[in-house]
Parts: sequence; structure tokens; C-alpha cells
Amino acid sequence: MRERCRELGLRLRPHVKTHKTLEGAALATGGSRRGIVVSTLAEARFFAAGGWDDILYAFPVPRWRLAECSELAQRLQEFQVLLDSPQGLEMLLQNPLPNGKRWLVWLKLDCGNGRAGIRPKDPEALGLARAIAQGSPELVTLVGLYAHCGNTYGCRDIGDIQAIARATTVAVLEFVTALRQAGISCPQATIGSTPSCSHPVPEMSQLTEVHPGNYLFYDLQQTQLGSCKPEEVAIRVLSRVVGHYQHRRQLLLDCGWTALSLHGSDQRGPEGCAAIEGHPRLRLVGLTQEHGLVEDVDGELDFEKFPLGTVLALIPFHACATAAMHPVYFVHDAGKVVELWRPVRGW
Amino acid sequence: MRERCRELGLRLRPHVKTHKTLEGAALATGGSRRGIVVSTLAEARFFAAGGWDDILYAFPVPRWRLAECSELAQRLQEFQVLLDSPQGLEMLLQNPLPNGKRWLVWLKLDCGNGRAGIRPKDPEALGLARAIAQGSPELVTLVGLYAHCGNTYGCRDIGDIQAIARATTVAVLEFVTALRQAGISCPQATIGSTPSCSHPVPEMSQLTEVHPGNYLFYDLQQTQLGSCKPEEVAIRVLSRVVGHYQHRRQLLLDCGWTALSLHGSDQRGPEGCAAIEGHPRLRLVGLTQEHGLVEDVDGELDFEKFPLGTVLALIPFHACATAAMHPVYFVHDAGKVVELWRPVRGW
Repeated sequence: MRERCRELGLRLRPHVKTHKTLEGAALATGGSRRGIVVSTLAEARFFAAGGWDDILYAFPVPRWRLAECSELAQRLQEFQVLLDSPQGLEMLLQNPLPNGKRWLVWLKLDCGNGRAGIRPKDPEALGLARAIAQGSPELVTLVGLYAHCGNTYGCRDIGDIQAIARATTVAVLEFVTALRQAGISCPQATIGSTPSCSHPVPEMSQLTEVHPGNYLFYDLQQTQLGSCKPEEVAIRVLSRVVGHYQHRRQLLLDCGWTALSLHGSDQRGPEGCAAIEGHPRLRLVGLTQEHGLVEDVDGELDFEKFPLGTVLALIPFHACATAAMHPVYFVHDAGKVVELWRPVRGW
Repeated sequence: MRERCRELGLRLRPHVKTHKTLEGAALATGGSRRGIVVSTLAEARFFAAGGWDDILYAFPVPRWRLAECSELAQRLQEFQVLLDSPQGLEMLLQNPLPNGKRWLVWLKLDCGNGRAGIRPKDPEALGLARAIAQGSPELVTLVGLYAHCGNTYGCRDIGDIQAIARATTVAVLEFVTALRQAGISCPQATIGSTPSCSHPVPEMSQLTEVHPGNYLFYDLQQTQLGSCKPEEVAIRVLSRVVGHYQHRRQLLLDCGWTALSLHGSDQRGPEGCAAIEGHPRLRLVGLTQEHGLVEDVDGELDFEKFPLGTVLALIPFHACATAAMHPVYFVHDAGKVVELWRPVRGW
């Protein structure tokens, strides 16, 4: 991803919400420890304590967490927050940072994703950008425009994903142009989502940065979306066969949703919550709290190939969700565990 | 549940997998700290360290966890394990406990649930029970028969649930009779699942115990199944309104699947992953990692009733899954937090 962004002339600001580890973020930033996106204040504090700076908290700043944001903004060179409403701006203006420091603000745009953000064509969008940039420049600075194209996850193929990435990019760039024409300074523009950044469209090179996150692990869903090849997925949950149920032609695994999550159970992919590495004919057909049930797609199953204790590697549908179920990742190389990575959790 | 079991002349052996706390288990055992079911060895160790005894590990004992089981069996008066295969028994016989102590074994029966367990009508079931009870009585003791009627979760109403509870109970009791006729001693018989134990059928009084777990919290799913009334559900996730999106008529909440899980997203209930307490017309229509989207069923939404910062209480679809996402429960009484309960996690 770093190489791809370099070629596009884009800065990569990796989102760390998938792995939430210092080690993963060090890899993703090429060791710079500068320029990440976080999804929670727990992540922000964890990375700040780990020596990171230039941290963007990509969630509409809530009033009841503002004191924590202020503390981070004072402590770091650059702690950046996200806004999508005049109320959010008003809150910052009422709570200025001490010692002449300014709130660093990204304006969140909703370019079709339909979650947080103001729509760039909204008649109030330009006014909000102007108020952030020019309302009280001694208190607040407009750093850039931020859009998340999570709607790429609903796509059927790479062409669809690229169409959304292009539309999102164009919407952001048109807004940049409108700001420039209105005399409003807005140095940065970023979009994100792993599907869009895995097959970037040329228009994206006119942004200043991108902020994908999931790609550090990838997962079954990304394989189905065409974001990666199966062999590029880095995350597995290891499980063992604990039972043979011949009359049902099922294996029982010691892996339930506490280890995998239920993400993928309602999805279109035939594998559901996980694929089973090296066994394309096996399907995880049931998942309860601590148990998994596996069948062969044909209904037949050669039990002798899977004696009790057999280790199966599950490739999760959604890496972010599966990672969230574990307190440690075992990082391996050539069959040996070489590092333990411990993620931050909570909010 | 304790009262109900007392009336039926049944011992209540609560399953602790939903809450995984010392405090919850103390409540559920009426303070005795004896007689619980656990789903993981992490739970077993946690409760043993907390002063509990008479702990049943309700998972087919895996060979690679046997040393841990042996340690617990030596440390506690009664640490009980579950078997459903001759291989499981053989493993115990090959690894006897020291100092004349015996492995205490429950035979897991599959009475239609279709997960772990041997079917009571399986021609090998009686032979397995005999081998546990009489094969090496100086090493292994058959404590009882254990069946889980998790298939009650697929039911549409209380009548269906009771039919399954009755069929499960009858299947277990018929197997008890067959054992007795064959001269095999098997003192205990237990079935479990919160739906079946919330509306017990008279036949269940002929068992020696039951082992429901979810009832300590209950949840939206149990409400839909008829196991409890809405006001009997003890679990909530508190969330705040962080955004108004008038053109989509949606509220944004600071609660995603990291705080709630995605359980319920593919279910039949109209509420999906959570109901919103006191607001039956509001629906949680979208859930990503840290964001939730809320709509009114009619498409209209009175935003003035939900200013930014409004606290909404989410009643989760599946308490076990939502509880698994949190490191602490805030126990409250009359509007005051009176205790913090900290669950054990992992395996």
C-alpha cells in the first residue's frame, strides 16, 4: 500500500482500527510513527503514549469527550479532529485550546456513504467550511476534507468499486475547487476504504492522502470484493477438530463466535463467517459461543483425513471484527512465532 | 430461576458463560459458590481462583487441554468434565489423576440439538456409558447425563419450546431408565437452555438439575422467544446521539458492533441487533465498527426530541455476545452505579 501510494504521489495515512497495535502502525507508516487515523479515543491515547504524533480522530467529536480531545491536542504536535456540523464547530470555539494552540479540523464529507458527514452539495457545506477556516483562525484551522467510501463494501466487482472511488474523489475535488474559488484555504483532501485503495483510480492522485485500514490484514470479504488475492490475507484463527459426528457428516471445532465473531453469517459468500485454508470443500456451517460445525460441500466427509486434534486455519470474513475478539496476535514467519502484538481495546 | 427450580425439586447449576463474573455466579448460586457450568478453561480457572467448587466444564475435553483439566481436578473437590466419545474416555484412562482421585465425567447426549453429544438411541451410547461407569471405576466415575437443548432458539413460541424441552427431557430420562435396567449407576441428569428453563415442563422435575445461563441477563432474543418480559431484561448498552442527518431522517449513535456485536442482524425480529428502550418506533438500521444509525419506523423523526448528547439505552439481541465485547459491567440500582463486575475472557 505504501508503494502504491508513493507511485500515486499520495501520502498514506493508515487507519489503525483493524489491528490497533503499535507494531502494525509502525509497519504501515514505514517506521515514521506519524500520520494515522484512529476510530476511538482509547486508540488515540494508546498511540500517543507509544510515541505517535499526527493522529486524526475520525469520529464526529462528541461534547462529552472534548476534555480528552483537548488533552491530546495539547500533548501532541498534531491531534486532529473531525466535524460535520455547525454545533461541532461551536463547541470547539467555546472550548479553545490554551497557549495559542489551534484546533486542527477535518471537515467530514458524505459523498454517498450515508453515515457521518455533510454532503458536499448541501447548501450549508461551503458555509460550514468557511466558518471552520475563517471564523476564528486564532482558535481553529481547517486542515482538510475527509470522506470515507464504505459504500464500496456493497459492490459486486472491482469496476463497481472504482466507480464509487471515482465518484467520491470527484465530489471531494469539486468541493476543493469550490473552496478555492471562494477563497477558503483547505490544504488536504483524503478518502479511504480498503476496496477503493486496493484498486485506485487515476483521479485519486489529485487528493493529498488516502486512509485505508483493513488492508494490513485483509480478509475473506476483501478477497470476495477483489481487493486482494487469497494468499494476501494475513489473518487466521487456528482451531482444532474436537469431535466427529458421522451420522451428520460433521466435524466439531473448538472455535465459536467468541473467537471469530458472527460477521459474514448473513453475507452472500458461500463460506459465511470463515473459509478453511487449504480445504475449499469444507464449510463452516454453524457457529455458537465456543463451537463450530464443519461440513463438506458434497455432504461426504473423509473423517480419517481430520483426526481429533487436527488444526484448521480459519480465514475470517471480516478481519476488523475477528481481531476485536482477541487480546493478542501471534505474528509468525516461516512457521515460527516471532512476535506478539497486543492491541488496544475499548473507547 | 432459583425459586422455580426449588419448586420443581431441581438443583439449579447455572451456566456462567453469559456474564463470566464472580458476582453474577454468586447471585445465581444463592451465595453457595458451588455448582456451576463453564464454557472455557479460562472460566474454570477464574472461578476456581475465586473460591468456587463443583465446576462442570461443558465442552468435549480436548487432549491438548487435558493437563489443565488435570490440574483443576486435583485442585478442586469436584471438577467435572464432559465426554461424548470412546476416544475421550480412553484419553482419561491413559491420564489418570494422582492420589486415587477419579475423573468425574458427564456423558454428553445429543437429543436433537445437533452439536456435541452422542445420540441416546445410538447403538454405541449404552456401551459408552457402561465403559465410563464400570470400565475402570478406580479411575473414572460417571456422574450424570448432560443435554443442551439449544434447538429451542429456533422456536416460534413457548409451545414449540416446551415440546423440545419435553422431548429432550424424555430422551434423557429414557436413557437413565435404560442405564438402570443395565445395572449402570448414573446419579445425575441435567438439561439446559434459558428458553426451556424459563417455561419448564412437568417432566423436567424428574431430572436432578438444570443448567440455564442467559437468564441472568436475558435479552431481546429471549423476549422475542417468550422466555421473559421486556422489563425482565437486565442488560443495556448506553449510547449517545452524535449526529443529526435530516435529509436521511437518521440519528447517528456512538455505538457500533465493537460495543454491541452483530448478533441479530440476520434475525427475524424487526429490531435487529438491539431494541431502543422507551422508543419502540426507533430502529437501529445500521451498525459499523463505531457508528450506529437510527431511524423512525414511519420514516419521520422528530430531531428536537433527540438533541446531540441524548442517551439511548440499547437492549441487545444476544446478551452473551454483547457482554463478550465489554471489560466491565456497570451494575446499578435506583439510578446509581453500585458495583463494577469484571468478567473473565479468553480460553
